[in-house]
Amino acid sequence: MALSDLNIVERNDTGIAAVLGILKQRFGERFQTGQAIREQHAHTTTYIPTQAPDGVAFPDNAAEVQEIVRACAEYRVPLIAFGAGTSLEGAVNAPGGGISVDTSRMNRIVEVNPQDLDCTVEPGVTRHQLNDYLRDTGLFFPIDPGANATLGGMASTRASGTNAVRYGTMRDNVLSLEAVVANGNLITTGKRARKSSAGYDLTRLFVGAEGTLGIITSLTLKLAGIPQAISGGVCPFPTLEQASEAVISTIQMGIPVARIELVNALQMRAFKNYSKLDYPESPCLFVEFHGSDASVAEQAESFGDIAAEFGGGPFIWTSVAEERAKLWKARHDAYWATLTLRPGARGLSTDVCVPISRLAECIAETEGDIAELGLIAPIVGHAGDGNFHTMILMDTNDPKEIELAEEFCARLNARAQRMDGTCTGEHGIGQGKIGFIEGELGSEGVDVMRSIKAALDPDNIFNPGKIWPRRLP
Amino acid sequence: MALSDLNIVERNDTGIAAVLGILKQRFGERFQTGQAIREQHAHTTTYIPTQAPDGVAFPDNAAEVQEIVRACAEYRVPLIAFGAGTSLEGAVNAPGGGISVDTSRMNRIVEVNPQDLDCTVEPGVTRHQLNDYLRDTGLFFPIDPGANATLGGMASTRASGTNAVRYGTMRDNVLSLEAVVANGNLITTGKRARKSSAGYDLTRLFVGAEGTLGIITSLTLKLAGIPQAISGGVCPFPTLEQASEAVISTIQMGIPVARIELVNALQMRAFKNYSKLDYPESPCLFVEFHGSDASVAEQAESFGDIAAEFGGGPFIWTSVAEERAKLWKARHDAYWATLTLRPGARGLSTDVCVPISRLAECIAETEGDIAELGLIAPIVGHAGDGNFHTMILMDTNDPKEIELAEEFCARLNARAQRMDGTCTGEHGIGQGKIGFIEGELGSEGVDVMRSIKAALDPDNIFNPGKIWPRRLP
Repeated sequence: MALSDLNIVERNDTGIAAVLGILKQRFGERFQTGQAIREQHAHTTTYIPTQAPDGVAFPDNAAEVQEIVRACAEYRVPLIAFGAGTSLEGAVNAPGGGISVDTSRMNRIVEVNPQDLDCTVEPGVTRHQLNDYLRDTGLFFPIDPGANATLGGMASTRASGTNAVRYGTMRDNVLSLEAVVANGNLITTGKRARKSSAGYDLTRLFVGAEGTLGIITSLTLKLAGIPQAISGGVCPFPTLEQASEAVISTIQMGIPVARIELVNALQMRAFKNYSKLDYPESPCLFVEFHGSDASVAEQAESFGDIAAEFGGGPFIWTSVAEERAKLWKARHDAYWATLTLRPGARGLSTDVCVPISRLAECIAETEGDIAELGLIAPIVGHAGDGNFHTMILMDTNDPKEIELAEEFCARLNARAQRMDGTCTGEHGIGQGKIGFIEGELGSEGVDVMRSIKAALDPDNIFNPGKIWPRRLP
Repeated sequence: MALSDLNIVERNDTGIAAVLGILKQRFGERFQTGQAIREQHAHTTTYIPTQAPDGVAFPDNAAEVQEIVRACAEYRVPLIAFGAGTSLEGAVNAPGGGISVDTSRMNRIVEVNPQDLDCTVEPGVTRHQLNDYLRDTGLFFPIDPGANATLGGMASTRASGTNAVRYGTMRDNVLSLEAVVANGNLITTGKRARKSSAGYDLTRLFVGAEGTLGIITSLTLKLAGIPQAISGGVCPFPTLEQASEAVISTIQMGIPVARIELVNALQMRAFKNYSKLDYPESPCLFVEFHGSDASVAEQAESFGDIAAEFGGGPFIWTSVAEERAKLWKARHDAYWATLTLRPGARGLSTDVCVPISRLAECIAETEGDIAELGLIAPIVGHAGDGNFHTMILMDTNDPKEIELAEEFCARLNARAQRMDGTCTGEHGIGQGKIGFIEGELGSEGVDVMRSIKAALDPDNIFNPGKIWPRRLP
């Protein structure tokens, strides 16, 4: 793939050898160099070929992360922070080798402040772990990308998911963080106050930086109260376009829907196969409402009216937790369900996000491309945000299939950008979309990012070869 | 004041003379150098002494801003963007002279996309102007700092105000922006999609940067639907502490209050004098609820119950627009009302913001300081966010009074920071709080800001002498 031209990182063999020696001596069993473990730390849920690091370190705390950063900085060796490995864009690949910093041992929930609706966690805490821990507090952490990602990883890709339409993304839900920067300093980006005007918003700068500015060692997160009532259900539609129109109308009417997920007929078939969901194989919206008993009933009724107006229904909803859980489990397993549609294939997940008024049009044109190019590519999306995914199932050993998939992605990303949208709503640029960011923000905007990167990480040690194309000399 | 040591900017007389010539020739009547107009562009609603720029330019569009930036960049002359001049922290002062870039002619509402609940405006548009324009669309821009500030200025200080507890701050409501950076490039920080993971969050970097990274020339803003129903009212309490406890409980119970403002007895007296508000001179909460008819009634009832629990009441609320308008007009005029408490005095507004659980304690200790130091300083606050202001009325010709005010501010800011809060919830650091940012974020964090500034503005031309103390050689 042309990708390789854009993200080449020269290997620094001498420096890497020196750092391997230092870290082995310092961390013993907590520094691993076996091939299997190295490949596990680069191989993620992506079609992008694995580029393994040279070693994997398992620090216990921020001070150890500082030691690792200082060693790598001295020898100019790449560092790639690793959470749960659920990146879809090759974010943890090591194109120039180097050290993977696995945060799995930094998985302490440092404090929960129920009175302030916030908590502080280490970066290796997963969202399931946090929500299990919070169970008795009446609070939950609402950001839900599907995968059981770590909170450090979710912050680094500015993740969001099904609940974002109501609760926002990681951008909105990280109050502050601590990170180790290239000179080995441990910085704090803010306090626990809900808002601040104290200088540059370093929190938001690190959220979404994909590990290119430092390694996050602690996060303070907003929590939400578990709603008094939750209701939700599935509503079928004759066409995907009608379903999209119903989403647009729901958002424009200001119904504070907590989730509103668009699923096309092919994806419904995958759910049926994989998760034994008993719903028709037609385009559907999966919706959920949070609030008081009266409010969720009112929301469900308003939504049902809108759905009917666009030919949808019947809208069957429930407040029974077990039934809802099954539904959302199926939605979360979309990646694995989709793979069953073509056994042996790899999946390439797209991630465009457009202004809501353009959603139906963007999806319709994308469906046209899928048909024209003969792809197997179900559609599922966080439609309330204007964000949707297609997952192209391809045989990555067949250059012709790769070429078709690339053609499809190029058209889709350009279409979203033309519609004043983005090529990535929540997955990040990583390696996979490195060719598209300048088309979106212009080289002037990307140059500002490059300047920031050069200032904070002059030797380019943090996750090199990601986000933007290297400058050809 | 010790301030002067922290924000000295050396004058570049030769460069300034050259730029004055260039801009006079290029902009004619749209470049002014008269003393009165220059002083107007530095004199704001602040106690900080005026430091006038050498000239004031009135560009019509982004291309003209680029010309001005290029001229100033060539001669290393400071540029200070100017909106409505409502800064409380000397943000538009020109400590090293230079050019004030007045955005008042860049006041076009470029487009409104009602279907997407967003709009694009030039930076000189004021929030009243925008909301007047939106009147027939059913939408409004919810951020309300009280003053009729420009949207460019509000973005630059990361402003918020009374509605932030429900609608967020400028951080949350700027979707993207355009800005002219130090090399004269016009950059775009994002598209109109509701969310994006495409690289560094440059939008959030410019929001709150106080004009130190470039000059904003366009903003794309989120809009909210005008609620079906709005109700609100005033609830008196025996003590400020009980009122604070009622706020804490309201937030913790998850009541989606749209505004919840804390006002102490002295401030109520000022309102009575200035705005003829007929309420008791005791601590009060001003509250407002947005939603459906049923929901605002439910919220008002729940709030009334909480208030009663903390000894407050009667809670008298109304859905009549005129009565509410009078109430909020009074709240917004707090600055002017307060000045009537001591004719001839200047006001110094503090701006701490703490985690909500610490609010009552922080206010109680602050009241203790006011009494101990013998200050006239009413308290008013966006209590739902943990943010409150005291306005110290002082005779700025009396060094003793200035010393007392400084002592009070130092104690207050340190107290908020000790309680895991910030010295500025919404006013910015500007010049006034320049001595407090390192106490809040540590020198390591501030050094990261300095590095970003040096990378993006190597000659320090954008609003020099603000946010952080200069490094002593």
